[in-house]
Amino acid sequence: MLSQNQLKHISALKVKKYREEFSQFIAEGHKLVMDLINSEFSIAGIYASADWIVTNLSVIREKDIPVFETLPREMERISALSTPSPVLAVVKIPAEQSSHPQIPTSSNSQIPKSSHFQIPTSSHPQIPKLFLALDDIRDPGNLGTIIRIADWFGMATVLCSENCVDLYNPKVVQATMGSIARVSVIRCNLAETLATLSESSGGFPVYGALLEGESIFSQTLTDHGIILIGNESRGISPELIPFITQKIFIPSFGSSELGKAESLNASIATAIICAEFRKKT
Amino acid sequence: MLSQNQLKHISALKVKKYREEFSQFIAEGHKLVMDLINSEFSIAGIYASADWIVTNLSVIREKDIPVFETLPREMERISALSTPSPVLAVVKIPAEQSSHPQIPTSSNSQIPKSSHFQIPTSSHPQIPKLFLALDDIRDPGNLGTIIRIADWFGMATVLCSENCVDLYNPKVVQATMGSIARVSVIRCNLAETLATLSESSGGFPVYGALLEGESIFSQTLTDHGIILIGNESRGISPELIPFITQKIFIPSFGSSELGKAESLNASIATAIICAEFRKKT
Repeated sequence: MLSQNQLKHISALKVKKYREEFSQFIAEGHKLVMDLINSEFSIAGIYASADWIVTNLSVIREKDIPVFETLPREMERISALSTPSPVLAVVKIPAEQSSHPQIPTSSNSQIPKSSHFQIPTSSHPQIPKLFLALDDIRDPGNLGTIIRIADWFGMATVLCSENCVDLYNPKVVQATMGSIARVSVIRCNLAETLATLSESSGGFPVYGALLEGESIFSQTLTDHGIILIGNESRGISPELIPFITQKIFIPSFGSSELGKAESLNASIATAIICAEFRKKT
Repeated sequence: MLSQNQLKHISALKVKKYREEFSQFIAEGHKLVMDLINSEFSIAGIYASADWIVTNLSVIREKDIPVFETLPREMERISALSTPSPVLAVVKIPAEQSSHPQIPTSSNSQIPKSSHFQIPTSSHPQIPKLFLALDDIRDPGNLGTIIRIADWFGMATVLCSENCVDLYNPKVVQATMGSIARVSVIRCNLAETLATLSESSGGFPVYGALLEGESIFSQTLTDHGIILIGNESRGISPELIPFITQKIFIPSFGSSELGKAESLNASIATAIICAEFRKKT
Protein backbone atom coordinates (compact mmCIF):
# COMPACT_ATOMS: atom_id res chain seq x y z
CA MET A 1 0.00 0.00 0.00
CA LEU A 2 1.33 3.40 -0.92
CA SER A 3 0.66 6.56 1.06
CA GLN A 4 -1.47 9.35 -0.36
CA ASN A 5 1.69 11.43 -0.59
CA GLN A 6 3.46 8.77 -2.63
CA LEU A 7 0.50 8.42 -4.98
CA LYS A 8 0.33 12.19 -5.45
CA HIS A 9 4.06 12.57 -5.91
CA ILE A 10 4.47 9.85 -8.53
CA SER A 11 1.35 10.87 -10.44
CA ALA A 12 2.70 14.41 -10.60
CA LEU A 13 5.77 13.18 -12.51
CA LYS A 14 3.63 12.83 -15.63
CA VAL A 15 3.81 16.64 -15.80
CA LYS A 16 7.01 18.36 -16.96
CA LYS A 17 6.82 21.08 -14.30
CA TYR A 18 6.91 18.50 -11.51
CA ARG A 19 9.57 16.39 -13.22
CA GLU A 20 11.77 19.48 -13.21
CA GLU A 21 10.84 20.41 -9.64
CA PHE A 22 11.66 16.94 -8.29
CA SER A 23 14.35 16.00 -10.87
CA GLN A 24 12.65 12.67 -11.35
CA PHE A 25 10.84 10.80 -14.09
CA ILE A 26 8.92 7.54 -14.39
CA ALA A 27 9.67 4.48 -16.49
CA GLU A 28 7.39 1.45 -16.78
CA GLY A 29 7.59 -2.18 -17.78
CA HIS A 30 10.02 -4.94 -16.88
CA LYS A 31 12.54 -4.49 -19.70
CA LEU A 32 12.76 -0.71 -19.46
CA VAL A 33 13.07 -0.78 -15.67
CA MET A 34 15.75 -3.49 -15.83
CA ASP A 35 17.70 -1.56 -18.47
CA LEU A 36 17.62 1.52 -16.23
CA ILE A 37 18.63 -0.46 -13.12
CA ASN A 38 21.64 -1.75 -15.08
CA SER A 39 22.62 1.71 -16.33
CA GLU A 40 24.19 4.80 -14.83
CA PHE A 41 20.78 6.20 -13.97
CA SER A 42 19.99 6.29 -10.27
CA ILE A 43 16.68 4.71 -9.27
CA ALA A 44 14.79 6.52 -6.49
CA GLY A 45 12.24 3.74 -6.03
CA ILE A 46 10.58 0.72 -7.56
CA TYR A 47 6.78 0.36 -7.37
CA ALA A 48 5.70 -3.13 -8.27
CA SER A 49 3.29 -5.98 -7.72
CA ALA A 50 4.11 -8.52 -5.03
CA ASP A 51 4.77 -11.10 -7.74
CA TRP A 52 7.24 -8.87 -9.56
CA ILE A 53 9.07 -8.08 -6.32
CA VAL A 54 9.42 -11.75 -5.37
CA THR A 55 10.77 -12.66 -8.81
CA ASN A 56 13.26 -9.78 -8.94
CA LEU A 57 14.25 -9.45 -5.32
CA SER A 58 17.90 -10.38 -5.78
CA VAL A 59 18.53 -7.62 -8.32
CA ILE A 60 16.78 -4.99 -6.21
CA ARG A 61 18.67 -6.01 -3.07
CA GLU A 62 21.98 -6.09 -4.88
CA LYS A 63 21.45 -2.54 -6.10
CA ASP A 64 19.95 -1.44 -2.78
CA ILE A 65 16.91 0.18 -4.37
CA PRO A 66 13.91 1.10 -2.20
CA VAL A 67 10.94 -1.02 -3.30
CA PHE A 68 7.24 -0.56 -2.59
CA GLU A 69 4.54 -3.14 -3.11
CA THR A 70 1.87 -1.53 -5.23
CA LEU A 71 -1.72 -2.70 -5.68
CA PRO A 72 -3.28 -2.76 -9.15
CA ARG A 73 -5.60 0.17 -8.35
CA GLU A 74 -2.64 2.19 -7.08
CA MET A 75 -0.64 1.31 -10.20
CA GLU A 76 -3.50 2.58 -12.34
CA ARG A 77 -3.25 5.91 -10.59
CA ILE A 78 0.53 6.39 -10.87
CA SER A 79 0.96 4.83 -14.34
CA ALA A 80 1.03 6.86 -17.56
CA LEU A 81 0.08 3.79 -19.60
CA SER A 82 -3.45 2.86 -20.57
CA THR A 83 -2.61 -0.71 -19.57
CA PRO A 84 -0.24 -0.46 -16.60
CA SER A 85 2.57 -2.97 -16.27
CA PRO A 86 3.46 -4.68 -12.97
CA VAL A 87 6.45 -2.39 -12.37
CA LEU A 88 7.16 1.32 -12.41
CA ALA A 89 10.46 2.98 -11.51
CA VAL A 90 10.95 6.51 -10.29
CA VAL A 91 14.30 7.54 -11.74
CA LYS A 92 16.50 10.54 -10.94
CA ILE A 93 17.12 12.97 -13.77
CA PRO A 94 20.92 13.30 -14.06
CA ALA A 95 22.47 16.67 -13.20
CA GLU A 96 22.22 18.90 -16.24
CA GLN A 97 24.70 17.98 -18.89
CA SER A 98 26.70 20.74 -20.47
CA SER A 99 24.61 22.61 -22.96
CA HIS A 100 27.76 22.96 -25.06
CA PRO A 101 28.65 19.47 -26.12
CA GLN A 102 32.21 18.88 -27.14
CA ILE A 103 32.44 17.22 -30.47
CA PRO A 104 35.49 15.72 -32.09
CA THR A 105 36.09 17.69 -35.26
CA SER A 106 37.75 15.00 -37.27
CA SER A 107 37.75 11.26 -37.19
CA ASN A 108 41.04 11.18 -35.32
CA SER A 109 40.33 14.33 -33.41
CA GLN A 110 41.95 15.97 -30.44
CA ILE A 111 39.67 17.56 -27.87
CA PRO A 112 39.89 21.37 -28.36
CA LYS A 113 41.58 22.47 -25.15
CA SER A 114 40.24 25.98 -25.00
CA SER A 115 36.68 24.91 -25.35
CA HIS A 116 33.92 24.70 -22.80
CA PHE A 117 32.35 21.97 -24.91
CA GLN A 118 32.15 18.58 -23.38
CA ILE A 119 30.50 15.32 -24.21
CA PRO A 120 30.03 12.99 -21.27
CA THR A 121 32.03 9.93 -22.17
CA SER A 122 31.87 8.00 -18.92
CA SER A 123 29.33 5.48 -20.14
CA HIS A 124 30.73 5.42 -23.66
CA PRO A 125 34.52 5.23 -23.46
CA GLN A 126 35.18 5.50 -27.16
CA ILE A 127 34.67 8.99 -28.57
CA PRO A 128 31.54 8.88 -30.68
CA LYS A 129 32.10 9.85 -34.29
CA LEU A 130 28.67 9.89 -35.82
CA PHE A 131 26.04 11.98 -34.06
CA LEU A 132 22.38 12.59 -34.52
CA ALA A 133 21.24 16.18 -34.02
CA LEU A 134 17.49 16.70 -33.69
CA ASP A 135 16.03 20.08 -34.49
CA ASP A 136 12.65 20.72 -32.93
CA ILE A 137 11.34 17.15 -32.79
CA ARG A 138 7.97 17.59 -31.11
CA ASP A 139 6.34 14.20 -31.14
CA PRO A 140 7.23 12.10 -28.06
CA GLY A 141 6.93 8.85 -30.01
CA ASN A 142 9.34 10.15 -32.64
CA LEU A 143 11.96 11.25 -30.10
CA GLY A 144 11.78 7.96 -28.23
CA THR A 145 11.94 5.94 -31.45
CA ILE A 146 14.91 7.96 -32.71
CA ILE A 147 16.80 7.24 -29.47
CA ARG A 148 16.06 3.53 -29.99
CA ILE A 149 17.38 3.80 -33.56
CA ALA A 150 20.52 5.59 -32.34
CA ASP A 151 21.10 2.74 -29.89
CA TRP A 152 20.63 0.10 -32.60
CA PHE A 153 23.05 1.83 -34.93
CA GLY A 154 25.63 2.58 -32.27
CA MET A 155 25.29 6.35 -32.17
CA ALA A 156 26.04 6.91 -28.52
CA THR A 157 25.16 10.61 -28.41
CA VAL A 158 22.07 12.43 -29.64
CA LEU A 159 21.97 16.23 -29.59
CA CYS A 160 18.52 17.82 -29.15
CA SER A 161 17.60 21.43 -29.79
CA GLU A 162 16.11 23.22 -26.84
CA ASN A 163 12.64 23.13 -28.36
CA CYS A 164 12.52 19.35 -28.74
CA VAL A 165 9.94 17.56 -26.62
CA ASP A 166 11.12 16.80 -23.06
CA LEU A 167 13.27 13.66 -22.98
CA TYR A 168 11.66 12.59 -19.70
CA ASN A 169 8.08 12.81 -20.99
CA PRO A 170 6.66 9.32 -20.19
CA LYS A 171 5.79 8.73 -23.85
CA VAL A 172 9.38 9.46 -24.90
CA VAL A 173 10.80 7.23 -22.16
CA GLN A 174 8.49 4.33 -23.09
CA ALA A 175 9.15 4.68 -26.82
CA THR A 176 12.91 4.32 -26.27
CA MET A 177 12.20 0.72 -25.13
CA GLY A 178 15.17 0.92 -22.79
CA SER A 179 17.57 2.72 -25.11
CA ILE A 180 17.34 5.83 -22.88
CA ALA A 181 19.56 3.80 -20.53
CA ARG A 182 22.35 3.61 -23.12
CA VAL A 183 22.22 6.71 -25.34
CA SER A 184 23.41 10.10 -24.07
CA VAL A 185 20.87 12.72 -25.03
CA ILE A 186 22.18 16.27 -24.76
CA ARG A 187 19.89 19.26 -24.97
CA CYS A 188 21.76 22.21 -26.42
CA ASN A 189 21.53 25.27 -28.61
CA LEU A 190 22.10 23.60 -31.96
CA ALA A 191 22.88 26.84 -33.80
CA GLU A 192 25.65 27.68 -31.31
CA THR A 193 26.99 24.14 -31.39
CA LEU A 194 27.08 24.02 -35.18
CA ALA A 195 28.58 27.53 -35.36
CA THR A 196 31.44 26.54 -33.09
CA LEU A 197 32.00 23.42 -35.12
CA SER A 198 32.11 25.29 -38.40
CA GLU A 199 34.69 27.69 -36.95
CA SER A 200 36.91 24.90 -35.74
CA SER A 201 39.27 23.21 -38.13
CA GLY A 202 38.91 19.68 -39.34
CA GLY A 203 35.91 19.99 -41.63
CA PHE A 204 33.45 18.05 -39.54
CA PRO A 205 30.67 17.24 -42.03
CA VAL A 206 27.10 18.18 -41.26
CA TYR A 207 24.56 16.09 -43.18
CA GLY A 208 21.13 17.68 -43.40
CA ALA A 209 18.00 15.73 -44.32
CA LEU A 210 16.28 18.04 -46.80
CA LEU A 211 13.63 17.51 -49.44
CA GLU A 212 15.89 19.16 -52.04
CA GLY A 213 18.94 17.11 -51.11
CA GLU A 214 20.77 14.61 -53.28
CA SER A 215 19.76 10.96 -52.96
CA ILE A 216 21.50 9.43 -49.96
CA PHE A 217 21.81 6.19 -51.93
CA SER A 218 24.17 7.77 -54.49
CA GLN A 219 26.30 9.80 -52.09
CA THR A 220 29.62 9.17 -50.45
CA LEU A 221 29.15 9.22 -46.70
CA THR A 222 31.82 9.59 -44.05
CA ASP A 223 32.20 7.57 -40.85
CA HIS A 224 32.12 10.76 -38.79
CA GLY A 225 29.89 13.79 -38.76
CA ILE A 226 26.54 15.09 -37.65
CA ILE A 227 23.26 13.93 -39.13
CA LEU A 228 20.77 16.75 -38.72
CA ILE A 229 17.06 15.85 -38.63
CA GLY A 230 14.40 18.55 -38.73
CA ASN A 231 10.94 19.14 -37.35
CA GLU A 232 8.10 16.79 -38.36
CA SER A 233 6.30 19.37 -40.49
CA ARG A 234 8.66 22.30 -40.99
CA GLY A 235 11.91 20.41 -41.52
CA ILE A 236 15.25 21.93 -40.51
CA SER A 237 15.11 25.49 -39.14
CA PRO A 238 16.30 28.21 -41.56
CA GLU A 239 19.06 29.31 -39.15
CA LEU A 240 20.62 25.85 -39.20
CA ILE A 241 20.60 25.38 -42.98
CA PRO A 242 23.87 27.34 -43.54
CA PHE A 243 25.77 24.87 -41.38
CA ILE A 244 24.86 21.91 -43.58
CA THR A 245 27.81 20.76 -45.66
CA GLN A 246 26.02 17.91 -47.45
CA LYS A 247 22.31 17.76 -48.22
CA ILE A 248 20.80 14.30 -48.16
CA PHE A 249 17.45 13.06 -49.33
CA ILE A 250 15.61 9.73 -49.38
CA PRO A 251 14.19 9.35 -52.88
CA SER A 252 10.59 8.27 -53.32
CA PHE A 253 9.69 5.39 -55.59
CA GLY A 254 5.95 6.10 -55.57
CA SER A 255 4.29 5.59 -58.90
CA SER A 256 0.53 5.81 -58.40
CA GLU A 257 -1.28 8.13 -60.76
CA LEU A 258 -3.08 9.42 -57.67
CA GLY A 259 0.06 11.12 -56.45
CA LYS A 260 2.42 9.91 -53.80
CA ALA A 261 3.37 10.35 -50.18
CA GLU A 262 4.69 13.85 -49.55
CA SER A 263 7.15 12.85 -46.93
CA LEU A 264 8.32 10.21 -44.53
CA ASN A 265 7.86 10.40 -40.79
CA ALA A 266 10.90 11.93 -39.03
CA SER A 267 11.85 8.75 -37.21
CA ILE A 268 11.40 6.66 -40.36
CA ALA A 269 13.70 8.99 -42.31
CA THR A 270 16.24 8.88 -39.48
CA ALA A 271 16.25 5.08 -39.54
CA ILE A 272 16.85 4.85 -43.27
CA ILE A 273 19.63 7.45 -43.08
CA CYS A 274 21.35 5.78 -40.10
CA ALA A 275 21.19 2.38 -41.82
CA GLU A 276 22.78 3.85 -44.94
CA PHE A 277 25.59 5.50 -42.98
CA ARG A 278 26.39 2.35 -41.03
CA LYS A 279 26.27 0.24 -44.12
CA LYS A 280 28.57 2.43 -46.16
CA THR A 281 31.15 3.38 -43.56
CA MET B 1 -25.10 23.16 -36.80
CA LEU B 2 -25.28 19.41 -36.84
CA SER B 3 -28.26 17.41 -35.59
CA GLN B 4 -28.00 15.22 -32.51
CA ASN B 5 -28.31 12.22 -34.81
CA GLN B 6 -25.38 13.37 -36.94
CA LEU B 7 -23.24 13.99 -33.86
CA LYS B 8 -24.08 10.55 -32.49
CA HIS B 9 -23.56 8.81 -35.80
CA ILE B 10 -20.15 10.30 -36.55
CA SER B 11 -18.89 9.88 -32.99
CA ALA B 12 -19.86 6.21 -33.16
CA LEU B 13 -17.47 5.70 -36.10
CA LYS B 14 -14.55 5.80 -33.67
CA VAL B 15 -15.67 2.30 -32.66
CA LYS B 16 -14.97 -0.68 -34.94
CA LYS B 17 -18.40 -2.24 -34.40
CA TYR B 18 -20.13 0.87 -35.73
CA ARG B 19 -17.66 1.33 -38.58
CA GLU B 20 -18.58 -2.16 -39.71
CA GLU B 21 -22.30 -1.61 -39.16
CA PHE B 22 -22.35 1.60 -41.21
CA SER B 23 -19.46 0.75 -43.57
CA GLN B 24 -17.98 4.17 -42.91
CA PHE B 25 -14.87 5.62 -41.30
CA ILE B 26 -13.62 9.09 -40.44
CA ALA B 27 -10.55 10.96 -41.71
CA GLU B 28 -9.41 14.33 -40.43
CA GLY B 29 -7.23 17.20 -41.53
CA HIS B 30 -6.97 19.10 -44.80
CA LYS B 31 -4.33 17.00 -46.55
CA LEU B 32 -5.81 13.62 -45.66
CA VAL B 33 -9.33 14.71 -46.60
CA MET B 34 -8.10 16.16 -49.91
CA ASP B 35 -6.14 12.99 -50.71
CA LEU B 36 -9.30 10.95 -50.10
CA ILE B 37 -11.49 13.30 -52.17
CA ASN B 38 -9.03 12.84 -55.03
CA SER B 39 -8.96 9.06 -54.71
CA GLU B 40 -11.32 6.22 -55.49
CA PHE B 41 -12.82 6.38 -52.03
CA SER B 42 -16.36 7.67 -51.90
CA ILE B 43 -16.98 10.50 -49.45
CA ALA B 44 -20.31 10.37 -47.59
CA GLY B 45 -19.98 13.84 -46.11
CA ILE B 46 -17.60 16.65 -45.20
CA TYR B 47 -17.89 18.30 -41.79
CA ALA B 48 -15.92 21.53 -41.68
CA SER B 49 -15.63 25.05 -40.35
CA ALA B 50 -17.25 27.84 -42.35
CA ASP B 51 -13.78 29.10 -43.29
CA TRP B 52 -12.68 25.74 -44.63
CA ILE B 53 -15.87 25.37 -46.64
CA VAL B 54 -15.50 28.80 -48.24
CA THR B 55 -11.88 28.13 -49.20
CA ASN B 56 -12.57 24.67 -50.64
CA LEU B 57 -16.04 25.13 -52.08
CA SER B 58 -15.07 24.58 -55.71
CA VAL B 59 -13.57 21.14 -55.04
CA ILE B 60 -16.55 20.02 -52.96
CA ARG B 61 -19.05 21.25 -55.58
CA GLU B 62 -17.12 19.64 -58.41
CA LYS B 63 -17.19 16.29 -56.64
CA ASP B 64 -20.79 16.81 -55.46
CA ILE B 65 -20.01 15.93 -51.84
CA PRO B 66 -22.55 16.77 -49.12
CA VAL B 67 -20.99 19.35 -46.79
CA PHE B 68 -22.04 20.42 -43.30
CA GLU B 69 -20.83 23.48 -41.47
CA THR B 70 -19.53 22.33 -38.11
CA LEU B 71 -18.96 24.46 -35.02
CA PRO B 72 -15.77 24.00 -32.98
CA ARG B 73 -17.64 22.43 -30.05
CA GLU B 74 -19.34 20.00 -32.44
CA MET B 75 -16.01 19.16 -34.04
CA GLU B 76 -14.59 18.36 -30.62
CA ARG B 77 -17.34 15.84 -30.16
CA ILE B 78 -17.02 14.04 -33.50
CA SER B 79 -13.23 14.24 -33.78
CA ALA B 80 -10.89 11.44 -32.69
CA LEU B 81 -8.00 13.90 -32.40
CA SER B 82 -6.96 15.62 -29.19
CA THR B 83 -6.66 18.83 -31.23
CA PRO B 84 -9.39 18.68 -33.89
CA SER B 85 -8.67 20.06 -37.33
CA PRO B 86 -11.14 22.26 -39.25
CA VAL B 87 -12.28 19.40 -41.46
CA LEU B 88 -13.46 15.83 -41.00
CA ALA B 89 -14.66 13.51 -43.75
CA VAL B 90 -16.99 10.55 -43.35
CA VAL B 91 -15.76 8.06 -45.94
CA LYS B 92 -17.39 4.88 -47.23
CA ILE B 93 -15.52 1.63 -46.60
CA PRO B 94 -15.11 -0.02 -50.01
CA ALA B 95 -16.95 -3.30 -50.59
CA GLU B 96 -14.85 -6.10 -49.20
CA GLN B 97 -11.91 -6.91 -51.36
CA SER B 98 -11.20 -10.51 -52.14
CA SER B 99 -9.62 -12.24 -49.19
CA HIS B 100 -7.58 -14.24 -51.68
CA PRO B 101 -5.35 -11.73 -53.37
CA GLN B 102 -3.96 -12.70 -56.72
CA ILE B 103 -0.25 -12.30 -56.88
CA PRO B 104 1.96 -12.48 -59.92
CA THR B 105 4.32 -15.37 -59.36
CA SER B 106 7.26 -14.09 -61.35
CA SER B 107 8.44 -10.71 -62.47
CA ASN B 108 6.92 -11.17 -65.91
CA SER B 109 4.00 -13.13 -64.62
CA GLN B 110 0.76 -14.19 -66.16
CA ILE B 111 -2.34 -14.14 -64.01
CA PRO B 112 -3.11 -17.76 -62.99
CA LYS B 113 -6.40 -18.41 -64.79
CA SER B 114 -7.75 -21.11 -62.55
CA SER B 115 -7.31 -19.09 -59.44
CA HIS B 116 -9.82 -17.25 -57.32
CA PHE B 117 -7.03 -14.88 -56.30
CA GLN B 118 -7.39 -11.32 -57.36
CA ILE B 119 -5.63 -8.10 -56.66
CA PRO B 120 -7.67 -5.00 -57.38
CA THR B 121 -5.67 -3.22 -60.04
CA SER B 122 -8.10 -0.47 -61.00
CA SER B 123 -6.24 2.28 -59.19
CA HIS B 124 -2.84 0.80 -59.94
CA PRO B 125 -2.75 -0.29 -63.59
CA GLN B 126 0.71 -1.84 -63.47
CA ILE B 127 0.83 -5.17 -61.71
CA PRO B 128 2.67 -4.66 -58.45
CA LYS B 129 5.76 -6.78 -58.08
CA LEU B 130 6.98 -6.13 -54.60
CA PHE B 131 4.43 -6.58 -51.81
CA LEU B 132 4.44 -6.02 -48.12
CA ALA B 133 2.68 -8.68 -46.05
CA LEU B 134 1.96 -7.77 -42.44
CA ASP B 135 1.47 -10.53 -39.92
CA ASP B 136 -0.44 -9.48 -36.81
CA ILE B 137 0.57 -5.82 -36.68
CA ARG B 138 -1.37 -4.55 -33.68
CA ASP B 139 -0.29 -0.97 -33.17
CA PRO B 140 -2.42 1.52 -35.17
CA GLY B 141 0.50 3.92 -35.52
CA ASN B 142 2.68 1.16 -36.94
CA LEU B 143 0.09 0.05 -39.50
CA GLY B 144 -0.56 3.62 -40.64
CA THR B 145 3.15 4.39 -40.84
CA ILE B 146 3.84 1.19 -42.81
CA ILE B 147 1.15 2.17 -45.35
CA ARG B 148 2.85 5.57 -45.68
CA ILE B 149 6.20 3.81 -46.22
CA ALA B 150 4.64 1.51 -48.85
CA ASP B 151 3.34 4.59 -50.65
CA TRP B 152 6.75 6.29 -50.54
CA PHE B 153 8.52 3.23 -51.90
CA GLY B 154 5.92 2.49 -54.56
CA MET B 155 4.52 -0.73 -53.12
CA ALA B 156 0.96 -0.41 -54.26
CA THR B 157 -0.46 -3.37 -52.36
CA VAL B 158 -0.12 -4.31 -48.71
CA LEU B 159 -1.46 -7.64 -47.47
CA CYS B 160 -2.62 -7.75 -43.85
CA SER B 161 -3.29 -10.86 -41.79
CA GLU B 162 -6.78 -11.06 -40.35
CA ASN B 163 -5.54 -10.26 -36.86
CA CYS B 164 -3.90 -6.96 -37.83
CA VAL B 165 -5.44 -3.83 -36.30
CA ASP B 166 -8.47 -2.50 -38.23
CA LEU B 167 -7.35 -0.40 -41.21
CA TYR B 168 -10.15 2.08 -40.58
CA ASN B 169 -9.24 2.72 -36.94
CA PRO B 170 -8.91 6.55 -36.79
CA LYS B 171 -5.32 6.26 -35.53
CA VAL B 172 -4.36 4.09 -38.49
CA VAL B 173 -6.08 6.41 -40.96
CA GLN B 174 -4.38 9.50 -39.50
CA ALA B 175 -0.94 7.86 -39.39
CA THR B 176 -1.11 7.07 -43.12
CA MET B 177 -0.98 10.84 -43.74
CA GLY B 178 -3.10 10.34 -46.86
CA SER B 179 -1.36 7.23 -48.16
CA ILE B 180 -4.52 5.21 -47.42
CA ALA B 181 -5.92 6.95 -50.50
CA ARG B 182 -3.24 5.41 -52.72
CA VAL B 183 -2.21 2.04 -51.29
CA SER B 184 -4.47 -1.03 -51.62
CA VAL B 185 -4.63 -2.78 -48.28
CA ILE B 186 -6.00 -6.31 -48.50
CA ARG B 187 -6.96 -8.27 -45.42
CA CYS B 188 -6.47 -11.97 -46.03
CA ASN B 189 -5.48 -15.27 -44.53
CA LEU B 190 -1.71 -14.98 -44.97
CA ALA B 191 -1.03 -18.68 -44.43
CA GLU B 192 -3.47 -19.61 -47.19
CA THR B 193 -2.12 -16.95 -49.51
CA LEU B 194 1.48 -18.00 -48.98
CA ALA B 195 0.56 -21.69 -49.29
CA THR B 196 -1.05 -21.10 -52.67
CA LEU B 197 1.96 -19.12 -53.77
CA SER B 198 4.40 -21.81 -52.76
CA GLU B 199 2.39 -24.38 -54.72
CA SER B 200 2.34 -22.28 -57.84
CA SER B 201 5.32 -22.31 -60.14
CA GLY B 202 7.64 -19.39 -60.64
CA GLY B 203 9.47 -19.31 -57.35
CA PHE B 204 8.01 -16.11 -56.02
CA PRO B 205 10.44 -15.22 -53.21
CA VAL B 206 9.16 -14.61 -49.69
CA TYR B 207 11.52 -12.46 -47.62
CA GLY B 208 10.96 -12.78 -43.90
CA ALA B 209 12.29 -10.25 -41.38
CA LEU B 210 13.73 -12.46 -38.66
CA LEU B 211 16.22 -11.90 -35.89
CA GLU B 212 18.24 -14.91 -37.06
CA GLY B 213 18.26 -13.82 -40.71
CA GLU B 214 21.25 -12.86 -42.79
CA SER B 215 22.14 -9.16 -43.00
CA ILE B 216 19.95 -7.51 -45.59
CA PHE B 217 22.92 -5.32 -46.53
CA SER B 218 24.91 -8.29 -47.82
CA GLN B 219 22.11 -10.12 -49.64
CA THR B 220 21.00 -10.19 -53.22
CA LEU B 221 17.43 -8.94 -53.39
CA THR B 222 14.98 -9.40 -56.24
CA ASP B 223 12.69 -6.76 -57.73
CA HIS B 224 9.67 -8.95 -57.05
CA GLY B 225 8.48 -10.91 -54.04
CA ILE B 226 6.78 -10.59 -50.73
CA ILE B 227 8.36 -8.89 -47.75
CA LEU B 228 6.86 -10.44 -44.63
CA ILE B 229 6.86 -8.36 -41.44
CA GLY B 230 5.87 -9.88 -38.11
CA ASN B 231 4.17 -8.81 -34.94
CA GLU B 232 5.72 -6.06 -32.79
CA SER B 233 6.75 -8.38 -29.98
CA ARG B 234 6.35 -11.95 -31.21
CA GLY B 235 7.70 -11.53 -34.75
CA ILE B 236 6.45 -13.71 -37.60
CA SER B 237 3.93 -16.44 -36.64
CA PRO B 238 5.37 -19.98 -36.52
CA GLU B 239 2.90 -21.18 -39.18
CA LEU B 240 4.23 -18.63 -41.67
CA ILE B 241 7.94 -19.34 -41.15
CA PRO B 242 8.01 -22.38 -43.52
CA PHE B 243 6.93 -20.16 -46.43
CA ILE B 244 9.94 -17.88 -46.08
CA THR B 245 12.46 -18.47 -48.84
CA GLN B 246 15.00 -15.86 -47.72
CA LYS B 247 15.54 -14.69 -44.15
CA ILE B 248 16.56 -11.08 -43.77
CA PHE B 249 17.87 -9.19 -40.81
CA ILE B 250 18.93 -5.61 -40.08
CA PRO B 251 22.26 -5.83 -38.27
CA SER B 252 22.81 -3.79 -35.13
CA PHE B 253 25.87 -1.59 -34.75
CA GLY B 254 25.37 -0.96 -31.05
CA SER B 255 28.57 -0.93 -29.05
CA SER B 256 27.77 0.30 -25.56
CA GLU B 257 29.09 -1.89 -22.76
CA LEU B 258 25.63 -1.48 -21.22
CA GLY B 259 24.10 -3.71 -23.85
CA LYS B 260 22.16 -2.62 -26.87
CA ALA B 261 18.68 -2.26 -28.28
CA GLU B 262 16.98 -5.64 -28.56
CA SER B 263 15.01 -4.79 -31.62
CA LEU B 264 13.74 -2.10 -33.93
CA ASN B 265 10.13 -0.98 -34.08
CA ALA B 266 8.16 -2.87 -36.77
CA SER B 267 7.60 0.21 -38.93
CA ILE B 268 11.25 1.26 -38.60
CA ALA B 269 12.42 -2.18 -39.72
CA THR B 270 9.95 -2.09 -42.63
CA ALA B 271 11.31 1.26 -43.76
CA ILE B 272 14.93 0.15 -43.74
CA ILE B 273 14.04 -3.05 -45.61
CA CYS B 274 11.92 -1.25 -48.23
CA ALA B 275 14.67 1.30 -48.82
CA GLU B 276 17.21 -1.48 -49.33
CA PHE B 277 14.98 -3.31 -51.81
CA ARG B 278 14.27 -0.19 -53.84
CA LYS B 279 17.88 0.81 -53.82
CA LYS B 280 19.21 -2.53 -54.99
CA THR B 281 16.59 -3.47 -57.58
